[in-house]
Amino acid sequence: MTNREFLTEYVLAFTHSLLHAGVTKAVISPGSRSTPLAYAFMKQQGIETYRQIDERSAGFYALGLAKASNSPVVLVCTSGTAAANYFPAIVEAYYARVPLIVVTADRPHELREVGAPQAINQINLFGSHVKWSVDLALPEQGNHLDSLKRHLGRAATLAKTSPKGPVHLNVPFREPLSIDFDQAYVSDTELYRFESGERLTDKAADFLTEVFGESRGLLIAGENTGEIPAEQWEFIRRLGWPVLADPLSNLRANVPADLHELIIDSYDALLKNGKFADRVAPDAVVRIGPQPVSKPLSLFLAKVKPARYVVLDESPMLRDPQSAATHHIQQHFSAMWQLKLKPKSSHPYLNLWITAQKLVQEAMEAHCQEELDEGVLAKAFFDELNDCDLTVSSSMPIRDADTYFQSTPRDVRIFANRGANGIDGVVSTAFGIQAANKRPGYLLIGDLALLHDLNGLIASKLQHADMTIVVMNNDGGGIFSYLPQSKEERYYEDLFGTPTGIQFKAAAEMYDAEYFPVKTTAELQAALRVPKEKPVRIIEVATDRANNVKIHRKLWSRLDEELDAWN
Amino acid sequence: MTNREFLTEYVLAFTHSLLHAGVTKAVISPGSRSTPLAYAFMKQQGIETYRQIDERSAGFYALGLAKASNSPVVLVCTSGTAAANYFPAIVEAYYARVPLIVVTADRPHELREVGAPQAINQINLFGSHVKWSVDLALPEQGNHLDSLKRHLGRAATLAKTSPKGPVHLNVPFREPLSIDFDQAYVSDTELYRFESGERLTDKAADFLTEVFGESRGLLIAGENTGEIPAEQWEFIRRLGWPVLADPLSNLRANVPADLHELIIDSYDALLKNGKFADRVAPDAVVRIGPQPVSKPLSLFLAKVKPARYVVLDESPMLRDPQSAATHHIQQHFSAMWQLKLKPKSSHPYLNLWITAQKLVQEAMEAHCQEELDEGVLAKAFFDELNDCDLTVSSSMPIRDADTYFQSTPRDVRIFANRGANGIDGVVSTAFGIQAANKRPGYLLIGDLALLHDLNGLIASKLQHADMTIVVMNNDGGGIFSYLPQSKEERYYEDLFGTPTGIQFKAAAEMYDAEYFPVKTTAELQAALRVPKEKPVRIIEVATDRANNVKIHRKLWSRLDEELDAWN
Repeated sequence: MTNREFLTEYVLAFTHSLLHAGVTKAVISPGSRSTPLAYAFMKQQGIETYRQIDERSAGFYALGLAKASNSPVVLVCTSGTAAANYFPAIVEAYYARVPLIVVTADRPHELREVGAPQAINQINLFGSHVKWSVDLALPEQGNHLDSLKRHLGRAATLAKTSPKGPVHLNVPFREPLSIDFDQAYVSDTELYRFESGERLTDKAADFLTEVFGESRGLLIAGENTGEIPAEQWEFIRRLGWPVLADPLSNLRANVPADLHELIIDSYDALLKNGKFADRVAPDAVVRIGPQPVSKPLSLFLAKVKPARYVVLDESPMLRDPQSAATHHIQQHFSAMWQLKLKPKSSHPYLNLWITAQKLVQEAMEAHCQEELDEGVLAKAFFDELNDCDLTVSSSMPIRDADTYFQSTPRDVRIFANRGANGIDGVVSTAFGIQAANKRPGYLLIGDLALLHDLNGLIASKLQHADMTIVVMNNDGGGIFSYLPQSKEERYYEDLFGTPTGIQFKAAAEMYDAEYFPVKTTAELQAALRVPKEKPVRIIEVATDRANNVKIHRKLWSRLDEELDAWN
Repeated sequence: MTNREFLTEYVLAFTHSLLHAGVTKAVISPGSRSTPLAYAFMKQQGIETYRQIDERSAGFYALGLAKASNSPVVLVCTSGTAAANYFPAIVEAYYARVPLIVVTADRPHELREVGAPQAINQINLFGSHVKWSVDLALPEQGNHLDSLKRHLGRAATLAKTSPKGPVHLNVPFREPLSIDFDQAYVSDTELYRFESGERLTDKAADFLTEVFGESRGLLIAGENTGEIPAEQWEFIRRLGWPVLADPLSNLRANVPADLHELIIDSYDALLKNGKFADRVAPDAVVRIGPQPVSKPLSLFLAKVKPARYVVLDESPMLRDPQSAATHHIQQHFSAMWQLKLKPKSSHPYLNLWITAQKLVQEAMEAHCQEELDEGVLAKAFFDELNDCDLTVSSSMPIRDADTYFQSTPRDVRIFANRGANGIDGVVSTAFGIQAANKRPGYLLIGDLALLHDLNGLIASKLQHADMTIVVMNNDGGGIFSYLPQSKEERYYEDLFGTPTGIQFKAAAEMYDAEYFPVKTTAELQAALRVPKEKPVRIIEVATDRANNVKIHRKLWSRLDEELDAWN
């Protein structure tokens, strides 16, 4: 595809996505940099275009259109002060709650801040008087059109979500700016949205009920910090689909006995196997909560592209990094418990998951008997827990929880910081959770994350605390061993391994914490079972990065072979 | 009240308001500038306090508390880099949708940007990673505690409105920072909030039904750009309260015959009369839409302080500049149409309004026969309109519409820019509205506002338009004549009058518009009735600022006397 073809495809996708999101009006001011978009809006059937020479007047003209029609109106201008002229109308729209989609063309990055004409700093140009401002990628090779289309949907939906208001899209273009007027645009990957509301609209309810009627369906559950109410379990019971439950969904604990089989906790392992993944391609997927941590799951969804991949998310800012969702229902997922689903009879598709999961669990059990690494130790730790809250650090601990925390009737709520996935502040988060829930708290963390927030321990000296910290000390950054960087030996230990040689005995002493250094699962279990007398216990588990990688890979090969043999 | 007493009152109001908004946890880091708040949080019963030395850890500790308890947690720190240390936890909270209320103490304005220690630029410190950031006023004489309390309510409600997230309050303090620990705090002006949702909760519905059962009640309707559905009229019918309808409520036009008396369009005149205002002090007020334009109405509400002043507003950012509201129902006002109200029998309170309004209308009719000024001309203009959209400029035209646009069965939708109340962009807004609604558009505007957006006329050369502009040319800024500045003769014409001597004949010619210069109501009516042949007609009404003030005041005196005699 030539650059011109791609540029044409891009701007056609741009206008088509806005039309799809309900936009029917655009006000265009003349200018050079905005040329491809201006052409596309003129060409786009279903979007009426209006023109104004003066961008300040154009802004207010669009405001009038939007006020009278009660729907979002697009503004398009070139780069430079043209954009600044929109500001008065944007401010008025913000306070009067009028939906506008402000599209400012911009120079490409090499022409910014270097004295080029009509190149001003347009990033966040309108400050706090827009609901959202985003700088899009250049419309050239590598640009993800599905992502663009979903971002335009986010923009339009945010503008019309109460309280309504303006949003800003900054769109850089590199010359040449001409498009091919004859190029056809075939749209086949649109995201459909259902209007927001506290309860499902009839239309959304009918649609969901139909989707839930599919036989080959998956319910994917991401992070959920609230308690799981009985309605949610009852819904899962009636649905009769495999539930791919992220450890943070809190659907792996407190599991009612009759639902144990429905909860699939080993999908990360299962979906690594290509044959199995092919066999279980679903017709329908419904996701609640954000994207789960499992990378094989993300890759699976991006590859199989389910015909209906419905996400329930109460925000217009849909969380969908793969742009794989096909439908967005702007609602908290608890809305779906009101659906009247007929109980399904057990289906071969479900049995496929259940059988495979049993196979994996048996193989994993054997592995844990025979081997020793961080994962095996983590499983021994998880198996000890009950009536408590567990915080897992980002990086390896959340992944170990994904692999080794198996669904259980025991009462363990799991937390982690997955908003931005940092390893900072993990100790403090765990102490905060423990202080709120007022029952024993546990923390699984690596040595670097513990060092990073060692000051989190100060909290234990200033108020009541009851915390057991299990630190997997592999003397550095373990997760990088699984990434492509690890194949490059140069600078590896300096930049990624970063061994410090630090052990935590002295830290425990400093904060008057109990301290148990352990190396084996038996020692770990023993340390966990010693009655606790002080606010904080630190169990330091000595592990080895190279060994962890080796044993992890051994497990994956074993499971892969088992599944291959069975498939 | 001493400064120390006021400071104590301020911080007690601060913590009490947060408790009232449902906050029960605060994490405090030690520091000097935050001393008064730190003391107040420790003293505040019902709010549990936690402490952390390291603000970065404190941020994540609060995050953990908020995640586990699913409710907003307060963070309190001193000024300077202490606040910057919160940033990682704020970012995580933003993306993980966790409610935090971040309170940063700050230096007073004279210590900002002058090299004072621990004084950094804390305004909007956390950029786009908080849902709202506000810099509060110094807690000294003149500070409005009611406003503070409502702002804290806005902050807490915004933090927990979906998608949840962090908000930031920056609080400057001037030394000395000590408070009186024995000072009692009596709270009697709290705002009560009902949880959000698309439909009313049972609790909110019961409360509203009870309020609407009051005999001495007022429904106040602010701007509403949507069409008025039949349910809204039916609701007004069953309610049987006087409806104080702002011209932008669009309840003054298309009025069903049997509801004509219920629509009070002359409250601006009525409430200027002290005796009448005293007689109609209501027990209950319900407001839909933003605050109406009428200043006498605002003063009336601030003075009588109705025991129940309920505002329906779908945003947590309640619009209540007088801090007079007592209850906020976070919902679009259409939610109340579902209430099952029993029809009321006519009450003396309603009759009081109806009788007074008749009196005022008759006096106004007589006035318009006898006098000539902008107001009288505006009324003649409004009386001509039907099957059209009317845009009125900010400044005098919206006020003339408030006074002279009387409730009517004719079909006229009225628009104005009242988000920020500017006189900029008015011409363009009117053309945009006309373009969307595709029926004749009318614009009432002053000479300065027309000059300001004369470029708005360009739109008429680029697409279809059908606009009649009535410009009240009083050669300058008319509204200032009614403000205190007008009593100071020095620089008055230079700064406020700003006469330009400009007339719009040439502008009409430039844009190929029809042009009618008029001076009397008869000439104005005639000009409006001439069949229109071109896209734009400009009717230039020559008026005189001094005369306008004189005749306006004459009207107010006349109405005041009539009401005094009747009361």
